[in-house]
Amino acid sequence: MKAPPWKWFIEYTHPTQAHMHGISKFIYSGRTKYQDVEILEVDFYGRCLILDGKIQSALSDEYIYHETLIHPAMLLQENPGKVLVLGGGEGAVLREILKHPGVEKLVMVDIDREVVELCARYLPEWNDGAYEDPRVQLVFGDAREYVKNSAETWDVVVMDLTEPVDDGPSYLMFTREFFQLLKGKISPGGVLALQAGSFNPRLLECHSAVYNTMGLSFETVRSYYTFIPSFDATWGFIVASQSKDPLSLGAEKVDALIKGRGIQNLRHYDGEAHGGMFALPKDIRVLRDKEKRIIEDNNPLTTF
Amino acid sequence: MKAPPWKWFIEYTHPTQAHMHGISKFIYSGRTKYQDVEILEVDFYGRCLILDGKIQSALSDEYIYHETLIHPAMLLQENPGKVLVLGGGEGAVLREILKHPGVEKLVMVDIDREVVELCARYLPEWNDGAYEDPRVQLVFGDAREYVKNSAETWDVVVMDLTEPVDDGPSYLMFTREFFQLLKGKISPGGVLALQAGSFNPRLLECHSAVYNTMGLSFETVRSYYTFIPSFDATWGFIVASQSKDPLSLGAEKVDALIKGRGIQNLRHYDGEAHGGMFALPKDIRVLRDKEKRIIEDNNPLTTF
Amino acid sequence: MKAPPWKWFIEYTHPTQAHMHGISKFIYSGRTKYQDVEILEVDFYGRCLILDGKIQSALSDEYIYHETLIHPAMLLQENPGKVLVLGGGEGAVLREILKHPGVEKLVMVDIDREVVELCARYLPEWNDGAYEDPRVQLVFGDAREYVKNSAETWDVVVMDLTEPVDDGPSYLMFTREFFQLLKGKISPGGVLALQAGSFNPRLLECHSAVYNTMGLSFETVRSYYTFIPSFDATWGFIVASQSKDPLSLGAEKVDALIKGRGIQNLRHYDGEAHGGMFALPKDIRVLRDKEKRIIEDNNPLTTF
Amino acid sequence: MKAPPWKWFIEYTHPTQAHMHGISKFIYSGRTKYQDVEILEVDFYGRCLILDGKIQSALSDEYIYHETLIHPAMLLQENPGKVLVLGGGEGAVLREILKHPGVEKLVMVDIDREVVELCARYLPEWNDGAYEDPRVQLVFGDAREYVKNSAETWDVVVMDLTEPVDDGPSYLMFTREFFQLLKGKISPGGVLALQAGSFNPRLLECHSAVYNTMGLSFETVRSYYTFIPSFDATWGFIVASQSKDPLSLGAEKVDALIKGRGIQNLRHYDGEAHGGMFALPKDIRVLRDKEKRIIEDNNPLTTF
Repeated sequence: MKAPPWKWFIEYTHPTQAHMHGISKFIYSGRTKYQDVEILEVDFYGRCLILDGKIQSALSDEYIYHETLIHPAMLLQENPGKVLVLGGGEGAVLREILKHPGVEKLVMVDIDREVVELCARYLPEWNDGAYEDPRVQLVFGDAREYVKNSAETWDVVVMDLTEPVDDGPSYLMFTREFFQLLKGKISPGGVLALQAGSFNPRLLECHSAVYNTMGLSFETVRSYYTFIPSFDATWGFIVASQSKDPLSLGAEKVDALIKGRGIQNLRHYDGEAHGGMFALPKDIRVLRDKEKRIIEDNNPLTTF
Repeated sequence: MKAPPWKWFIEYTHPTQAHMHGISKFIYSGRTKYQDVEILEVDFYGRCLILDGKIQSALSDEYIYHETLIHPAMLLQENPGKVLVLGGGEGAVLREILKHPGVEKLVMVDIDREVVELCARYLPEWNDGAYEDPRVQLVFGDAREYVKNSAETWDVVVMDLTEPVDDGPSYLMFTREFFQLLKGKISPGGVLALQAGSFNPRLLECHSAVYNTMGLSFETVRSYYTFIPSFDATWGFIVASQSKDPLSLGAEKVDALIKGRGIQNLRHYDGEAHGGMFALPKDIRVLRDKEKRIIEDNNPLTTF
Repeated sequence: MKAPPWKWFIEYTHPTQAHMHGISKFIYSGRTKYQDVEILEVDFYGRCLILDGKIQSALSDEYIYHETLIHPAMLLQENPGKVLVLGGGEGAVLREILKHPGVEKLVMVDIDREVVELCARYLPEWNDGAYEDPRVQLVFGDAREYVKNSAETWDVVVMDLTEPVDDGPSYLMFTREFFQLLKGKISPGGVLALQAGSFNPRLLECHSAVYNTMGLSFETVRSYYTFIPSFDATWGFIVASQSKDPLSLGAEKVDALIKGRGIQNLRHYDGEAHGGMFALPKDIRVLRDKEKRIIEDNNPLTTF
Repeated sequence: MKAPPWKWFIEYTHPTQAHMHGISKFIYSGRTKYQDVEILEVDFYGRCLILDGKIQSALSDEYIYHETLIHPAMLLQENPGKVLVLGGGEGAVLREILKHPGVEKLVMVDIDREVVELCARYLPEWNDGAYEDPRVQLVFGDAREYVKNSAETWDVVVMDLTEPVDDGPSYLMFTREFFQLLKGKISPGGVLALQAGSFNPRLLECHSAVYNTMGLSFETVRSYYTFIPSFDATWGFIVASQSKDPLSLGAEKVDALIKGRGIQNLRHYDGEAHGGMFALPKDIRVLRDKEKRIIEDNNPLTTF
């Protein structure tokens, strides 16, 4: 083997657990009004975005994260005309949403303009031209305020936010109060999808608490997951709805919907993958269902 | 947070990729005739076994690995009377196999007596008394020689070996020639299960090559996988048979079989989990199916 | 190069500074009544003792530390008949002291019997038979209490203790009150020598505070230093006396004293080395002399 | 303590030895025609320059390295009118040389224009305006060629080059052939000074081989050293001359020379420091003097 690299990104998931990624090149390093931002080339996974020391996505596998976040919800909604994205800094969720021909209006609200612009500049493959699409509207501001003040209702809402921890900018987006508010802004057959923390059974508290909190507002709440290589972790997601259930979609149905919409360039997600994502190991279900915590505006989660 | 620990186990998966585990206690460190052995207490995952620098299993999640390796094959075989284990040093595969009431004879062949004895001494929860079971016979020796010289045929064969790399003791157990030999020692309705390398799409070469090689000998070869927290990775397994197919087992069928056999203490595996394990993401299938490599006695895999 | 090792001892000197030592073998790991103890074989420096995460000495360079601590004081005292060691767990200070033929009585007081016994068992090169010498008396107990209660006065006192930090067992041995007490137990021409923390100018607080505190009790207080490879650091020591000054010993004088006493096996220390140890860089002197802090029983130093 | 940083510079000095420096900010990362260049802000030592993975100097302690390299030679030469610098990318050697009022002509020859320009831009404290001094002439090119082709003789020559290893750009600057050539370009009372590798006794091969090689060309060759905090190491230097000897300068003489030349802003070097730098520990002298290796154009040193 060659000599070890001398620049490392070390992502701690716990005081005694970390992932080491050898860095081949520094691209950008700075601090916005809201968070620390690094754009690096990790030798093994390519260029990546890091916010407050946590990898958000990497060139070689961001398709896994973004396809998994977007397509179950988009396919479950037979008519995803109006789509709202809360967060979504890299722009890749827009790229995936726009693969669905029925989209008429797509609004993305992100609080951190600087991150969005840095991603557009240094990570252009992520949005892949989405910002030029006339259906896309970009709003820089507080997503909770936007939802509160908007009179619109949405067919699909996607939350692509950093983790709901007390010292980060996102925790008020995962509370009982916010989900209650959001429910009122989703159309009757509408669907909500969000990233929802690590799916490692030893680190499941965040996912479980979000899942439990969402159950107060939505009829159907489903955990699902996939493995993200550059996270060195299986990651959790949630789909919620008042009337739809992703478990109702079998592999053939998913494949038929993808084909029916003319979507040809999915790499990770398809009918078989859908089945795997929503079939949870027993220990995960048991752990998650033991969680009694409700995240509230004045009762946030805390980090390690 | 408290100060970082000063003892670390750093597992490299690539020259520029590694997982760091803070160590709370050293238990044992030595070298057998075949490999380096460490038994450590990792702060986050508990006591664990490390062979040649690679974590084999950890107290807090070895059930995930061992249930996943054993139960699909054991349930697929309606009459698993005679079971052969190749490798299996920690003894936990025996514990899982013995949960199935039909087992009459269970032979484990491991080349490294010292590792087996160290595990029995320092990791007793793994075998959980299996070595005292009168059906169990322990053989210390070369597993390939044992298979070649044995006149027995087996209802289930389990390979729980270290990775098939050219400088390790196991690579001759993953070759075309060996699988051809093994096929002749499996009973007509018999089933073979084995651990088969990382399922990270960037590290899939080993799994793909084993899968491709096995296709030359077996009618049905199925990849499956689960996430092992202490590996920081999704891990691959394979079930092969001349007449059985794990895809034929739906969730209800799996749950019914578990109940029918009176197995009550599974923590990770059940019907729903089974469905998830055998439903592969599209990118994994595409990558795996591109692999044309055949592992042969004189054409081994090599490590990074 | 070969693959990086998978076991590392990582010694933090600051939250953002650390030294990594690849471990070739774990020897012992445990906790005594007073501190965490590891005995490891570090690939580069050989077997070593680690207390509370800090390396104390290593096979390949403990001679540097121990010769530096002992010989300036022992040579400065023309008649070192009675010698007291406070701390000194590994036993190597005894070995060095016994090289001086005038020693008649040598008492070592260490609080941690278990550490002394572990060192005697696993690090026998350190004491090199000193415990069998009839002049040596080993006392297990609190060194401050021993000094307080002893009616003896000593020709040389050596303090070989862990760092004077508030959460360690040694801080009450570096206070104004203790040095005042100790002064009364040193014979008129007696000499005190002690290890006194890092000599890195960015980490000089501990050395400076000890030096400043000692100035209240002793006429002459001299900092000196040498580089300890396994510490990756230049380390500070102090010699103090009411009537002697190590700066009065030139290189020729030191060499003559060594020869006169018939000491033949010094590897690091001699006349030339003595001159280098007591000649301080200007920045170190300036930094040290700015320190106004007095360590007192109720005003300890704190760690990073 | 706060959470560990997520960006680290890890400098390997051996496959099983490394220093970890938490990075607070990336400034520049790239590759010139000759080497990899990083400019980083290390949390503990400030902004620093890294070439091919090895730290060259850091804001908080570059004065130690550069004062040590320059002033012994410059003071030894009573009339340092013409000074040649080979290498010297950061420009700090110029700053130190220009503190001596007798300098009339100062030529710096560095092969890597890009590194010199990056340092001038990002590390302005290093040269501190030296490039604007009319006595300074900057030449970009191969230093050995420059020396060969120049008809000039020099009063002081300074070599501030990266280490003489076979895969780096500098090894032909440390060979018998080159020193022979260089000797002819130094004025009768002239002095040569150079950085000469780690002074860790376990890593002394490079220093010893350079020292031994230089002995073939120069009457007087003296090793000296100081501790560089950001290197976590004691570093070696060499002064050589046909007629001068730094051991002839006592502390008072050095202080008088500094005062006589009106130099007021030295922080690390003075008379006392000079004495310490040239007084070598016994083990270092023994190890160095055992070295029989001659570095030649066709017999380079090799790295670990």
